[in-house]
Amino acid sequence: MAFTYLTNVPIEQAKKDYLRTLAELGFGARSERIRVQDAFGRITARAVYAHINAPHYACSAMDGIALYAKDSFGATETTPVTLNKGQFTVVDTGDPLPDGCDAVIMVEELVKNEDGSVTIHAPAAPWQHVRQIGEDICAGEMILPGFMEVTPAAIGAMIAGGVLELDVLAKPVVGIIPTGDEIVPPCTDPKPGDILEFNSSIFSAMLASWGAEAKIYPIVPDRYDEIRDMLGKAADECDLVILNAGSSAGRDDYSVTAVREVGEVLYHGIAIKPGKPAILGYRGAVPILGVPGYPVSGIIVIDELLRPLIDCWYYRDSDRGSRTRAKLTRPVVSGLKYQEYVRVRMGYVGNSLMASPLPRGSGVVSSFMKADGIVEVPQGTEGYTAGEEVRVRLLTEKQRLKNTLVVIGSHDPLLDELADLIHRDDRRLFLSSAHVGSMGGIMAVRRGEAHAAGIHLLDTETGEYNRTYLKKYFPHGGVYLVRCVGRQQGLMLQKGNPLGITSFAEIAKDGIRYVNRQKGSGTRVLMDYLCDKYGVDRDQIYGYEREEMTHNSVAVQIAGNSADAGMGIYSTAKLYDLDFLPICVEEYDLLIPGKIWNSGLIRQLIQTLKSEEFRTRIEDMGGYTLDRPGEIIDVF
Amino acid sequence: MAFTYLTNVPIEQAKKDYLRTLAELGFGARSERIRVQDAFGRITARAVYAHINAPHYACSAMDGIALYAKDSFGATETTPVTLNKGQFTVVDTGDPLPDGCDAVIMVEELVKNEDGSVTIHAPAAPWQHVRQIGEDICAGEMILPGFMEVTPAAIGAMIAGGVLELDVLAKPVVGIIPTGDEIVPPCTDPKPGDILEFNSSIFSAMLASWGAEAKIYPIVPDRYDEIRDMLGKAADECDLVILNAGSSAGRDDYSVTAVREVGEVLYHGIAIKPGKPAILGYRGAVPILGVPGYPVSGIIVIDELLRPLIDCWYYRDSDRGSRTRAKLTRPVVSGLKYQEYVRVRMGYVGNSLMASPLPRGSGVVSSFMKADGIVEVPQGTEGYTAGEEVRVRLLTEKQRLKNTLVVIGSHDPLLDELADLIHRDDRRLFLSSAHVGSMGGIMAVRRGEAHAAGIHLLDTETGEYNRTYLKKYFPHGGVYLVRCVGRQQGLMLQKGNPLGITSFAEIAKDGIRYVNRQKGSGTRVLMDYLCDKYGVDRDQIYGYEREEMTHNSVAVQIAGNSADAGMGIYSTAKLYDLDFLPICVEEYDLLIPGKIWNSGLIRQLIQTLKSEEFRTRIEDMGGYTLDRPGEIIDVF
Repeated sequence: MAFTYLTNVPIEQAKKDYLRTLAELGFGARSERIRVQDAFGRITARAVYAHINAPHYACSAMDGIALYAKDSFGATETTPVTLNKGQFTVVDTGDPLPDGCDAVIMVEELVKNEDGSVTIHAPAAPWQHVRQIGEDICAGEMILPGFMEVTPAAIGAMIAGGVLELDVLAKPVVGIIPTGDEIVPPCTDPKPGDILEFNSSIFSAMLASWGAEAKIYPIVPDRYDEIRDMLGKAADECDLVILNAGSSAGRDDYSVTAVREVGEVLYHGIAIKPGKPAILGYRGAVPILGVPGYPVSGIIVIDELLRPLIDCWYYRDSDRGSRTRAKLTRPVVSGLKYQEYVRVRMGYVGNSLMASPLPRGSGVVSSFMKADGIVEVPQGTEGYTAGEEVRVRLLTEKQRLKNTLVVIGSHDPLLDELADLIHRDDRRLFLSSAHVGSMGGIMAVRRGEAHAAGIHLLDTETGEYNRTYLKKYFPHGGVYLVRCVGRQQGLMLQKGNPLGITSFAEIAKDGIRYVNRQKGSGTRVLMDYLCDKYGVDRDQIYGYEREEMTHNSVAVQIAGNSADAGMGIYSTAKLYDLDFLPICVEEYDLLIPGKIWNSGLIRQLIQTLKSEEFRTRIEDMGGYTLDRPGEIIDVF
Repeated sequence: MAFTYLTNVPIEQAKKDYLRTLAELGFGARSERIRVQDAFGRITARAVYAHINAPHYACSAMDGIALYAKDSFGATETTPVTLNKGQFTVVDTGDPLPDGCDAVIMVEELVKNEDGSVTIHAPAAPWQHVRQIGEDICAGEMILPGFMEVTPAAIGAMIAGGVLELDVLAKPVVGIIPTGDEIVPPCTDPKPGDILEFNSSIFSAMLASWGAEAKIYPIVPDRYDEIRDMLGKAADECDLVILNAGSSAGRDDYSVTAVREVGEVLYHGIAIKPGKPAILGYRGAVPILGVPGYPVSGIIVIDELLRPLIDCWYYRDSDRGSRTRAKLTRPVVSGLKYQEYVRVRMGYVGNSLMASPLPRGSGVVSSFMKADGIVEVPQGTEGYTAGEEVRVRLLTEKQRLKNTLVVIGSHDPLLDELADLIHRDDRRLFLSSAHVGSMGGIMAVRRGEAHAAGIHLLDTETGEYNRTYLKKYFPHGGVYLVRCVGRQQGLMLQKGNPLGITSFAEIAKDGIRYVNRQKGSGTRVLMDYLCDKYGVDRDQIYGYEREEMTHNSVAVQIAGNSADAGMGIYSTAKLYDLDFLPICVEEYDLLIPGKIWNSGLIRQLIQTLKSEEFRTRIEDMGGYTLDRPGEIIDVF
């Protein structure tokens, strides 16, 4: 394969050119005929007209008798008229009007005679108490114009109008071709080197939400001929095609060459990040979109470049969700060359809407799950400073953001359990947590970004937890310290302790691979304190510089035999079935800004901390001591 | 069956009591296990935890060599280190880190030697350029709390975390039992007396929009045992049951007796209109809702009483849509005894949002299709006066209302074609028309309710159309008169003219059944003028008092042999395959308020009137002459 030169076309121009090119080639909706009962939410392809009248027969609107009105003319109180059998028919409400009849007299206005005749004392006006043919819908009338969404009532009106089938815009079928030697179908026991194929599942769900249907093809290995052939097959069978490249070097070349062989390439290389190597191609009127393999790039490319095609198919305005302004909690640095899409986690703390940039790695699918919004840093802009107000495209409803408790600080798995319990108790409330360590939590509270922060900072002089730090970082006060849990800290070791580690000081021994926590985390403070206490030379610790952000990720390295030891809490060691060398019990407390102390969110948090269910769950996790959680320790 | 006494319990109390009773009986969501790929939009039944790490192996983040970092220690520019084969492995991005290796050096930083060894000039830090296990997701971590909606990214995160199945809240299965001897499945050729069964289709679509699944049972005739048995079966098989009563007398008794036999009845008779005879019953924890047969009553009862149960199933707040205030164009009279639900058609004319009550007949399903909102007239209130501002629950988005051209006035089928064309040309625009006759149109424009009115009012003195009326009703001017079409008016007669009618004057002859238009319509003005002109005594016309609101509904009566003659336009006679006796060509023009003349909606209307497509469609309908449609005739 030849070296491929990537263009760097601005995203808006790429979209415009792609749509125009495809429109000229005839890209657009097919229609299909479906049963009316299946039409809810679909879009009519053309106007729908009634075939029959509704009601389709004249019928009595009352219980009584049907008659020819003229036979009753002249009846008055003083000169009643008697109708003989044969001149009238007894009818119930809804009964068809018999032939020759054109009016109904209510049963209450009749005198029934013994010989079966009836006497009336007032004339019937022609068509009185008769429900006329077509009162609701007349045959030939338009029930729905074209390109309208079918509502439940419209379904009823169509059936009433004798319409059993109608033409609607077909859902566009989008072929998805996953490629790559390393890609394997979803499973629970992938081998090293295997990458689980989940992009097609993400894309399918996105497509479903836009009214399109995914057709997922089998995974194609990195063999050029097979990729090209599958692409041709998909272009034959689908309305649009997504070619999902493998994520390693050289795969991109296969893709663009294959698209060129089966069709045309308009652009290869768009000025966006992530998503730069996207391919905008087509065969005839079938768009073929080459999508990078990394999930985050893929999501951005599909959202930015495929979604407008689906909107065009349905002739609808692109609805890119609502936008709002929010304050950045950290700077966002971006290159001048491309438009960058930065995922942010958002929250209302007091009245300010804050946006915190999430990890930008394009392989990190969980960051998209946690994202509440996307900040688009335009091409030609270097980014934004912390505290700057930026425009955010919302992925989460504002109301939900207002009901979300933002917890930023030290990691503990109990925060996930809190999230689960709070939402269970009140479905309108959510808890969103970010793990930046205890010091990061203190800073987040100072900057007004968080409703609460988990902290466990040891004052090595006094042996006291947290209070010293709060006095220092909140000299003017304004924060509450709330009791959460006592946690067993220690050394997590490989199962069975194959290296026979029995004391903290041994971590500096030759042959022991340590995995550390990031600076500013409470566990790192503890670790450094222990080094000083036991006279351990940090330079002698193999892996001291290797930093992980959570207890879990430290444990995972040990469980996966890429490390031998790391500091962490007992519950995590237990979760990963690791050995554990206890070192101390620390106080893990919650720091809460005073100005939101009386908010409903905090009230719910405290209530949940005090609940029996919280106690049970946390005790089941092991290594925790619960001593009046939710109680105020001190107000600063 | 015994006579049933209906309660008249207020709707809010009924809802509260019903929900409480059912909650005590254990009504609530089941969970079900489904494939992750099928989970988009579903609600988790409990928290979902990762089974494996993502990535699940340490891998190279660069192209280069993998090595044991310690082997590189000490390398500098001046004291390079050479690694022999066996001390390193060549790796590409994404390749698993080989056993014994813990760092990667980029290919750009290597010097390759001829003997296969490599020389480096800087040490590798342990774990540099390595993507760690669990960087995205750690095994055992909570991916999603319980009771959360599953997003596309969450599907990706679950698969990445080795989760292939999860527990979600099952969609409640709602059994729908249609009953009634007169009810037949949807068809295009119902016999007189047949009623097409479309309620279950309407209800199914409503249920689908709320996340419930309908299970429609076969139509049960009005036989008590069969109804009771089907009810028992449905209560066995479903989570909720709707028993849809027949619409005639006595059916209601069957329903309530059957519910009593298989279960319990909490209330029979709710203080709402329509929907009063609703039955709130249950068997065990399965709610059984008895729903009246008329579609409009049914829709109201399902929306008011079943929807809260579905919301309760999903533990979500009832979202009853947004509410707004609007000005009533006509009075709404309501009884004190019940809460009444009045469907309204809405529109923005200028800045005022207007609400026009729609026909209230509970059999009229088309009124629900046309409704943009619902005015709830509370129990104990007698209604509202015209011009009063009332609270409306919106069924149509406000933005759409702002983009809807409201045409009120004389009926012509060309308005439907206009609606279709305008929406086709600009999918954001809609046309909504109401047929109240020419005089009604003039009044609607005077009251500021309409963007346009179709009028064709003959000044019998001058023979001129429309202008005389505008001078009279708009003495201060402020309106535009715009040319639309010339229409062939005449007598519509049964096909083949079996009664041999050859002149207008014959409509008063004995044995001829006439069907008239309503007072205030242009066609009625013409009819009365013709009576005077030809000396026809109105009292002699059989059916003179029988009024229909549209050309179509007049034609339908003649086509259905419930009348012999009626005034109407040629295009309608042609549509219904009727004979036609031409009488005159009239001017059907559009009246438009001056203050909105420059709005985008009116611009689009004029553009469509002038379009070739409009001309073609209207000419195809027959009986029209198009002479510069869209041109201003005069400004008043």
